[in-house]
Amino acid sequence: MTSSTDVKSKQQLKKEDLWKCASIFLFILLTTSVSIILLLLSHRDVCTNEYHTSLIESQPKIFIITPTYARPERLADLTMLAQVLMHVKNIHWVVVEDGGRIAEPVERLLHRTEIEHTYFSAVTPDYLPKRGWAQRNAALRHLREKYIAYTDHALVYFADDDNSYDYRVFDDYIRKVKRLGVWAVGLAASSRIEAPNVDNDTVIGWNVMYRPHRRYAVDMAGFAVSLRLILGTLALFGKDCVGSDPEDCFLRQIGVPLSELEPFGHDTDPKDVLVWHTKTVVSKMKGESYGYVFEEKHL
Amino acid sequence: MTSSTDVKSKQQLKKEDLWKCASIFLFILLTTSVSIILLLLSHRDVCTNEYHTSLIESQPKIFIITPTYARPERLADLTMLAQVLMHVKNIHWVVVEDGGRIAEPVERLLHRTEIEHTYFSAVTPDYLPKRGWAQRNAALRHLREKYIAYTDHALVYFADDDNSYDYRVFDDYIRKVKRLGVWAVGLAASSRIEAPNVDNDTVIGWNVMYRPHRRYAVDMAGFAVSLRLILGTLALFGKDCVGSDPEDCFLRQIGVPLSELEPFGHDTDPKDVLVWHTKTVVSKMKGESYGYVFEEKHL
Repeated sequence: MTSSTDVKSKQQLKKEDLWKCASIFLFILLTTSVSIILLLLSHRDVCTNEYHTSLIESQPKIFIITPTYARPERLADLTMLAQVLMHVKNIHWVVVEDGGRIAEPVERLLHRTEIEHTYFSAVTPDYLPKRGWAQRNAALRHLREKYIAYTDHALVYFADDDNSYDYRVFDDYIRKVKRLGVWAVGLAASSRIEAPNVDNDTVIGWNVMYRPHRRYAVDMAGFAVSLRLILGTLALFGKDCVGSDPEDCFLRQIGVPLSELEPFGHDTDPKDVLVWHTKTVVSKMKGESYGYVFEEKHL
Repeated sequence: MTSSTDVKSKQQLKKEDLWKCASIFLFILLTTSVSIILLLLSHRDVCTNEYHTSLIESQPKIFIITPTYARPERLADLTMLAQVLMHVKNIHWVVVEDGGRIAEPVERLLHRTEIEHTYFSAVTPDYLPKRGWAQRNAALRHLREKYIAYTDHALVYFADDDNSYDYRVFDDYIRKVKRLGVWAVGLAASSRIEAPNVDNDTVIGWNVMYRPHRRYAVDMAGFAVSLRLILGTLALFGKDCVGSDPEDCFLRQIGVPLSELEPFGHDTDPKDVLVWHTKTVVSKMKGESYGYVFEEKHL
């Protein structure tokens, strides 16, 4: 046998060595492939979130406009709203202080949330009511200046800091709006529910107690509008709105016919309410603040 | 040259082929190592959360007791509280309905949060006020029965559903309590702030307007107690507490001397308030609910 091996041609010998080499190569390839697959599998659960996040981030951005003012319950309200928004991806929060300057505790709060945000102050002129109108206008002007060349589809939503939000309103309703979306609001204007009246997926009017004959009888928390419509109009909560309802006045300027509104939540079972027009009420505050962060009523 | 190659010995040839083979082997090893390292690096950010979570999960569990009852604003309040708790890891939420049966919208809400929870109902007997006492008692009895053999360090916190919580109160205060921790509460009992009076890290009394001479002049949202102390006493919000303040009455039964209380948040700069005794107030509700989920006032 030994002598027979000895007489093998160089070609045969080379073939044998290359075969060995190929075996080693295949073994390494198999081992590393299995390792990589196991590694990926072990990370799958963790990465589901990342996958979900990246899906959301490829979806329309939501610009959330919140007018706010100093009052004893403001930090409580704003903390709770901030913590809702921390569950929502791909948003930009525009917070506008009613007054001559921004508040340091609010600035710290916004920084802590790690939410992409813009925070500035705007004084309410004498001819407008102190109800967040001037601050919403300042936010709209900011969007119209800064995002003038923004071509991606995005949405604008007015979120007051004392309302209560189910975070599903952002992903299930607002983010799906094409031009102007509307939905039910709980506890608005002393009503159990204010809701669009929907027939065959088309809004034909409003199920409301308060001024039912408004063209857009919808609460501030009950609609979202595309950034494109905001950039394409000059709609504001302006002097012309004094004496009428701000939502109706604003949406008349946006000018989407009732038949083209996009209703949400009217066809689910059960019909959950995802936003409530709540109010945090505190009695007249007594006593000291003992060095703790406390905001007196500003307006 | 050709003839010189031809006369190479078998040994020399073998060496040359093995060298080639080793080169390929090394190349594959290097490539896959670099790939694995890059793969691991790309997952590092995502996995930081998992690491943080597992750190928290090795820390004490928090049992959160929430008495609740049906009312128009309840789903708004409970949704907002649930969304705070979704930011907190390693908790068990014990929700107790005041009434003969649990509420389906609450059950759905709890299920949606994916928070570990127990939800049941308890009727308030005639001799107790309808202020969550019987429900907190039912939750305490549940813990004493179910966790009798629980030896790990854990905490118990009473969180009413209409308060406002900064989620830091759970990780920065409650989870660090050894036996009985106390901290400031905003907007409690018409006061700006109610806080423990701390001297040299020791509680020496209470900075409060309302009944300052109580032994434990602390709001329900202003303390957390170790599960061990709950299991080791029979403390309840019982008949004996009628006519006194529930917090003071309960903590007297727990029996930790003032000097052994653990104060939190008195030495931070700035001194943030992390929990507020807020109240959501709605006017008398009119109108229909148009098929949307709405809860009438139960109590």
